[in-house]
Amino acid sequence: MHECNVACVWCRECIAWALPHISVSLSAGLSAAKLLQANGLSPVVLEARDRVGGRTFTVRNKEVKWVDVGGAYVGPTQNRILRLAKEYGIDTYKVNEEESLVHYVNGKSYPYKGSFPTVYNPIVLLDFNNLWRTMDDMGREIPREAPWRAPHAEEWDKMTMLELKDGIILRSPTYFIYFYLHLFNQEKSVLNFAKLFVNVNVTSEPHEVSALWFLWYVKQCGGTMRIFSTSNGGQERKFNGGSGQISEGMARELGDRVKLQSPVYRIDQSGDVVVVETLDKQTYTAKYVILATPPSLNMKMHFNPELPPLRNQLIQRVPMGSVIKCMVYYKENFWRNKGYCGTMAIEEEDAPIGLTLDDTKADGTKPCIMGFILARKCRKLSVLTKEERLKKICEIYARVLDSEEALHPVHYVEKNWCEEEYSGGCYTAYFPPGILTQYGRVLREPVGRLYFAGTETATEWSGYMEGAVEAGERAAREVLCAMNIIHQSQIWQTEPESLEVPALPFDTSFWERNLPSVGGLLKLVGFSSFLSVAAAAGLVAYKKGLLPRS
Amino acid sequence: MHECNVACVWCRECIAWALPHISVSLSAGLSAAKLLQANGLSPVVLEARDRVGGRTFTVRNKEVKWVDVGGAYVGPTQNRILRLAKEYGIDTYKVNEEESLVHYVNGKSYPYKGSFPTVYNPIVLLDFNNLWRTMDDMGREIPREAPWRAPHAEEWDKMTMLELKDGIILRSPTYFIYFYLHLFNQEKSVLNFAKLFVNVNVTSEPHEVSALWFLWYVKQCGGTMRIFSTSNGGQERKFNGGSGQISEGMARELGDRVKLQSPVYRIDQSGDVVVVETLDKQTYTAKYVILATPPSLNMKMHFNPELPPLRNQLIQRVPMGSVIKCMVYYKENFWRNKGYCGTMAIEEEDAPIGLTLDDTKADGTKPCIMGFILARKCRKLSVLTKEERLKKICEIYARVLDSEEALHPVHYVEKNWCEEEYSGGCYTAYFPPGILTQYGRVLREPVGRLYFAGTETATEWSGYMEGAVEAGERAAREVLCAMNIIHQSQIWQTEPESLEVPALPFDTSFWERNLPSVGGLLKLVGFSSFLSVAAAAGLVAYKKGLLPRS
Repeated sequence: MHECNVACVWCRECIAWALPHISVSLSAGLSAAKLLQANGLSPVVLEARDRVGGRTFTVRNKEVKWVDVGGAYVGPTQNRILRLAKEYGIDTYKVNEEESLVHYVNGKSYPYKGSFPTVYNPIVLLDFNNLWRTMDDMGREIPREAPWRAPHAEEWDKMTMLELKDGIILRSPTYFIYFYLHLFNQEKSVLNFAKLFVNVNVTSEPHEVSALWFLWYVKQCGGTMRIFSTSNGGQERKFNGGSGQISEGMARELGDRVKLQSPVYRIDQSGDVVVVETLDKQTYTAKYVILATPPSLNMKMHFNPELPPLRNQLIQRVPMGSVIKCMVYYKENFWRNKGYCGTMAIEEEDAPIGLTLDDTKADGTKPCIMGFILARKCRKLSVLTKEERLKKICEIYARVLDSEEALHPVHYVEKNWCEEEYSGGCYTAYFPPGILTQYGRVLREPVGRLYFAGTETATEWSGYMEGAVEAGERAAREVLCAMNIIHQSQIWQTEPESLEVPALPFDTSFWERNLPSVGGLLKLVGFSSFLSVAAAAGLVAYKKGLLPRS
Repeated sequence: MHECNVACVWCRECIAWALPHISVSLSAGLSAAKLLQANGLSPVVLEARDRVGGRTFTVRNKEVKWVDVGGAYVGPTQNRILRLAKEYGIDTYKVNEEESLVHYVNGKSYPYKGSFPTVYNPIVLLDFNNLWRTMDDMGREIPREAPWRAPHAEEWDKMTMLELKDGIILRSPTYFIYFYLHLFNQEKSVLNFAKLFVNVNVTSEPHEVSALWFLWYVKQCGGTMRIFSTSNGGQERKFNGGSGQISEGMARELGDRVKLQSPVYRIDQSGDVVVVETLDKQTYTAKYVILATPPSLNMKMHFNPELPPLRNQLIQRVPMGSVIKCMVYYKENFWRNKGYCGTMAIEEEDAPIGLTLDDTKADGTKPCIMGFILARKCRKLSVLTKEERLKKICEIYARVLDSEEALHPVHYVEKNWCEEEYSGGCYTAYFPPGILTQYGRVLREPVGRLYFAGTETATEWSGYMEGAVEAGERAAREVLCAMNIIHQSQIWQTEPESLEVPALPFDTSFWERNLPSVGGLLKLVGFSSFLSVAAAAGLVAYKKGLLPRS
């Protein structure tokens, strides 16, 4: 055994981070280390890869200048990551949403503005309105720091999102009448869009995830509008020069405390100190360890003593989502000339991509469409070659944008996160049914001298770079508290709002709050008068612009 | 790096097994090695623990003589494990089922005989009959070697077993009439028993598991009757002296080819040979590696090159079940005097135990009740002390058996498999919704020179010792085929039936096959004449003994 006390040579107290992967971006492990260093400690960061950044990764070359092949987007209320970026002088710029967004469904393109596609059919409009409102209402019942304590936690955790969606949309007490009304197949448009909503937000399928977990996830991002919107939402901005700069900035600051290519495979806390061993045959000793990996990657380590039963089982139960991030570069951003901003929400089973955003640089160079291959499609298309995927992608872009130019890319970059041993997938871990209520309590419960970070342990924008920073800093403060440097009441801290990227409220109109669901309307007015009233209510609301979502 | 080519010194071809845990019992890794050795090769078995046996574990001491704290039961159609046992001269004996079994529900004990509890209410009887029949009918559609190819695979994999059960029991086309009929809450007895059925068979909750996977699981064990029965079923027998003797026998035969305390943490197949490193700092080189761990424990290893995307994600998605196996020893087997055989099926939320079996030795010594703490109850009760669990267990036994003697155990042995780092849980891995259809195909697909065993990869009695042997021998033959020693057509082999433990058919009577479900009956006869007909049909069938299950 090679004894290596490098860390201890330097430090007042020695702390090692075991990071086969540093949270959604980097940020959990490095931001923990940064905060500890600022408090006079001497942490060591053990990074599995030959680069920092984890699920963020900025690639530079002359074809693209730079490109974020991992986590990239940032928006209002993500104040911690914005604070860190500002500290390193990294600007943000707005993702292009000037022209129309486009919703492609049933083989046709429908331009729209705002967060969600326009709904023309008044019955479907009531359904949509009811779906978002119900999800946000249910979210309000769920404590962001302890979703397992929600009043209906057990019930909702037993359902998948597929069941819940079907339930919200189809199972009103007037089910039968409602069902026959929907023989037109109109209800399917809501069900299908809700499926895309789950695919896009958590890179998994509605039938794979717990309804409780998904409702919690949307809630802790600020609700259905905040999570899904570009303007005023989670995808409002990108970092000029790439999100990877933030980790790189922190790594620079930490200097040779950051050890690259050091996957941790063994953690022994049976003695007075914690002994950590890495694949490159180094041994580190520390007083405390922060594990800043997704929960499932704790599995890469052998523990002595063994983890407690619930943690030993939790880490087998929260798999990482499935996504390939695809950037198609063109000579010009021809879509803008056609009145499209570059955002496409694509509902077609054979289309590889579910959602796109314009990825042209802020200065207008390197015209590019970023698109996600999500969940079931990611698994199916993983077996193709890169060229085959590109061909399929260009074909759907050509159909959606009705443009032959989409077939002639000048460059293509993609990243399949499912193949990364030290991420396991992207963007984040999901909870299958039953797990959050049974195992959620131990998600960030320390085990001896081991503390847990990683964006999955966050309570605001968990799954995002923001959550990684929250988690890393919270875990660092848990260690500071254990060392009697700060008081327990200081562990959890709120973050002041970013001056540069303020959050606006989302207006919900009187109509949105009070329009009934189709089922509710049936109950109110009875079936006989239903059709006329529904049509009238929906059409009035729509024509008056009272439904900004549509 | 310590270079260790011990294996190669001996062998014509060198093969290493990476076994942080050897399948449900032992048997996958050791039985693979045994078969290879019999073919003139020189395998090495790398065992993580300080003992062989994996999920089987026979403990010996004077209080109990011997006790199987892990996998123990064996029955007809489990011909491979019976063949191995016979080779080592290990006898089986029948689990006691002479006296009555007992079903405890709503605070009362109901003695019964046969596989399933007696149902007195004719409507509930139709429900039960329909549930088992429907599950077996659905199972017949599912190919045991490729459940993802079942005609309804996609649909059933999107449902949890909770949804499917509710569907079979509650959602007939005559739902509303049916619902009101069941206002007596009679339908709950079927739902609750079906929950116990899932808990007992796969140590997880109905809402946690894919319906497709669970239906497959029951099917590949031979159906609802075979899996759940003691006589003529999976729990018919135990091995005299303990199931651990089988692995011990194989390990003895393999001699110093078995390396204990050698958890594998790294597998490198980037060169001409596979390089395997263990926590005790040994390095093994081999031409082929068989991984005989549950899929999730592949996560304990760092791979070079990385695993392909689907395998990298599969191994995060199939967690191990949750169970504590509890043996309570008494001075006498007082239950037999009261006319009970020791089997209790307990439906009570506050009861720790779901199912018991008599665990008295074949010669009548060491009177003992074996009980399982299952799934949700396992997670809840993991935090108690051993003494607290024992107290709760004795209390429920006293109530179910109506005996004060149950409160006075003379000895107690328990094993919580959730705390085992190198099993992850027991009995086996489960598939949450959506995973079997998306990832099942890669379950035993070789990756370069890596082959996959472990009971989870079996197609008959997967999850059992039998499945472990099937899987180990199949993987060994895959390697033999890769080495051109056998032909591809020889990889999968059927097993002749055990002479000592023959399988009997389960009679299904005309009535069982043809009695309608409650919903079906309603459709046939209409609501008006329903009650009388249902009552008549059920009662006649019951009184004539035409429903052997009840």
